[in-house]
Amino acid sequence: MTIKSFHPPLRTLMGPGPSDVDPRILEAMSRPTIGHLDPVFVSMMDEMKALLQYAFQTKNALTLPVSAPGSAGMEMCFVNLVEPGDKVIVCQNGVFGGRMKENVERCGATAIMVEDAWGTAVDPGKLEDSLKKHPDAKVVAFVHAETSTGAQSDVKTLVEIAHRHNCITIVDAVTSLGGSPLKVDEWNVDAIYSGSQKCLSCTPGLSPVSFNERAVERIKARKTKVQSWFLDLNLVMGYWGSGKRAYHHTAPINALYGLHEALVILQDEGLENAWVRHDRNHQALKAGIEAMGLRFVVKEGERLPQLNSIHIPDGVDDTAVRSALLKDYNLEIGAGLGVMAGKIWRIGLMGFASNATNVLFCLSALEETLGRLNAPINRGMAISSAHKVLG
Amino acid sequence: MTIKSFHPPLRTLMGPGPSDVDPRILEAMSRPTIGHLDPVFVSMMDEMKALLQYAFQTKNALTLPVSAPGSAGMEMCFVNLVEPGDKVIVCQNGVFGGRMKENVERCGATAIMVEDAWGTAVDPGKLEDSLKKHPDAKVVAFVHAETSTGAQSDVKTLVEIAHRHNCITIVDAVTSLGGSPLKVDEWNVDAIYSGSQKCLSCTPGLSPVSFNERAVERIKARKTKVQSWFLDLNLVMGYWGSGKRAYHHTAPINALYGLHEALVILQDEGLENAWVRHDRNHQALKAGIEAMGLRFVVKEGERLPQLNSIHIPDGVDDTAVRSALLKDYNLEIGAGLGVMAGKIWRIGLMGFASNATNVLFCLSALEETLGRLNAPINRGMAISSAHKVLG
Repeated sequence: MTIKSFHPPLRTLMGPGPSDVDPRILEAMSRPTIGHLDPVFVSMMDEMKALLQYAFQTKNALTLPVSAPGSAGMEMCFVNLVEPGDKVIVCQNGVFGGRMKENVERCGATAIMVEDAWGTAVDPGKLEDSLKKHPDAKVVAFVHAETSTGAQSDVKTLVEIAHRHNCITIVDAVTSLGGSPLKVDEWNVDAIYSGSQKCLSCTPGLSPVSFNERAVERIKARKTKVQSWFLDLNLVMGYWGSGKRAYHHTAPINALYGLHEALVILQDEGLENAWVRHDRNHQALKAGIEAMGLRFVVKEGERLPQLNSIHIPDGVDDTAVRSALLKDYNLEIGAGLGVMAGKIWRIGLMGFASNATNVLFCLSALEETLGRLNAPINRGMAISSAHKVLG
Repeated sequence: MTIKSFHPPLRTLMGPGPSDVDPRILEAMSRPTIGHLDPVFVSMMDEMKALLQYAFQTKNALTLPVSAPGSAGMEMCFVNLVEPGDKVIVCQNGVFGGRMKENVERCGATAIMVEDAWGTAVDPGKLEDSLKKHPDAKVVAFVHAETSTGAQSDVKTLVEIAHRHNCITIVDAVTSLGGSPLKVDEWNVDAIYSGSQKCLSCTPGLSPVSFNERAVERIKARKTKVQSWFLDLNLVMGYWGSGKRAYHHTAPINALYGLHEALVILQDEGLENAWVRHDRNHQALKAGIEAMGLRFVVKEGERLPQLNSIHIPDGVDDTAVRSALLKDYNLEIGAGLGVMAGKIWRIGLMGFASNATNVLFCLSALEETLGRLNAPINRGMAISSAHKVLG
């Protein structure tokens, strides 16, 4: 059997990520590969750090892209900041809090779970109660933007509570970075990780992370070695830190070209402008979705503009709809995860994909498809409702 | 400060990797991103598995690209196959054996080191002696192609010895895959990892791995959880295995397009033809290098064709030469690592970069640069010597 070159179809990516990638980023990734210790590449890394600091709104020196997807960025935070025997409070309101628990336990630590209903924000009161019950807890971890439900939590308040109880904080910002307000320094976040393939609109495979001085001190004061060689920040710092670069691992050169370009695009648009754009397109989608009579999973005020979770109407076959959208429109929307599987759709408006064309295209495709499958929706009003918001 | 798009210089990459990337691969990476659960992408993954099985010469079902660089592939092998308290014999004859030791210890296991001089192959006799002394050892790990020195070891013999003593084997094939003979099934290798940026000529960032049934059984029989969530094969198998794909992490889509294309190129050339080509270009480079009066670090018979380590002549400034090659010729050759730093150069002829043009270009550039810096070399014979081999 001879296998041929792979030529993917041209999809519109409106799921939970990867999102549509700006062609500028795809072109950047095809630029000539140079060495990971080349002085020109090292200068690019310095620019990358500055661009990531801007995106995270931080001055943290230890700000870098992990050479692997967001789940490796999550693991980097946990394996460096948690030691065997530690007690870690994990607030769970979706799939990714559960993955945090897995990480804690694999570090030989104990996870104290603070549970909130999926689709709601993390309740600060419950966190406070748990911290009072567990005065020996050392770390608090939670998700800013739950990709599995579309709910956002109040980072500033949760960090304040954790600090009042002498805990360091680990925050999952995989879906929020670049898409909705995130202010690492102003909110005093200690350790944070994200992904390249959400609101930065880059291809998947890299995980921007940032650690403040409090986190760095904690890492330097560890009694045990970090269990992962690949993710040990003591070693990674030697390569990404300032001064002479020590070889650690071979950086994913061309993927980093892509992330650099994505961050230049964000810088050129302006972070606040990007947040406003994400919000406007969300409002337009929402107007259209509600005009069809569909309902959002997350209540107003806790909703992420970049990830719109919608209840699947009664009697409608999840897979049939998503398959039709993919087949007839080359449009990908997201399925539910975990307990939400088969019950919700997740419509992403992330980064480059957060634009008026995508909003209108998705509403048209969804309305036509649901109509064809005899779903109980209101027809003929979605587009005009969205247009009113888009102006 | 406004940061602009990054435009790398056009280098010739003849270091220890990344090597020159075929433009076909760069173009493949810029194809439209699709979702990691898209049925079209899933078909591409099946092709990828078949192509990797061909490259590794194996029928192992558990053959896949790890979504991170080679050092993560190494870590995947260790964290899945080693449990706390295990005894692991590590044969070290360069930098990467040392990294294996780090991995073993971070798994809570004990590393028994079998040391050979840097620049020589692993001595099977020493391994056998160590296994006799440590009958409770469970794993034997060694490097097939030591990227830090250019020495290759006899995988078949070392695996035979390990199996005779009831040990499972972990083999580092980062620099050998696609460049010199490697036969996973015929040699009975249990677990093996490689990198995308060496003789596959892809961009860095992915690590092809393969595990046989013996290794899979060992993983399934573990008493403890794998300490890394990201690298836990029990979870990764759910995504890369056959049947329904369970979401684990978001795969690096476009990087995988690149690896797929690299493997199609290898398939089209034919693995044996690629080995012959690597050998012929090595012979040509060798003829030129020796005509200049320079000496190889590794003795004939243990030398890797794809990585040529050469003693820096007495009195010659390592950095001055490499900087001049980079500045004046846009040519990257590799420095020495660890105890070899400042003492050797590493000239890669890997994958796409293993071609007659690069051999002649490198010899010319090196001869001119060394001559200009008054190094004690024979001049005027390198090119004609190489030409004789190239025919």
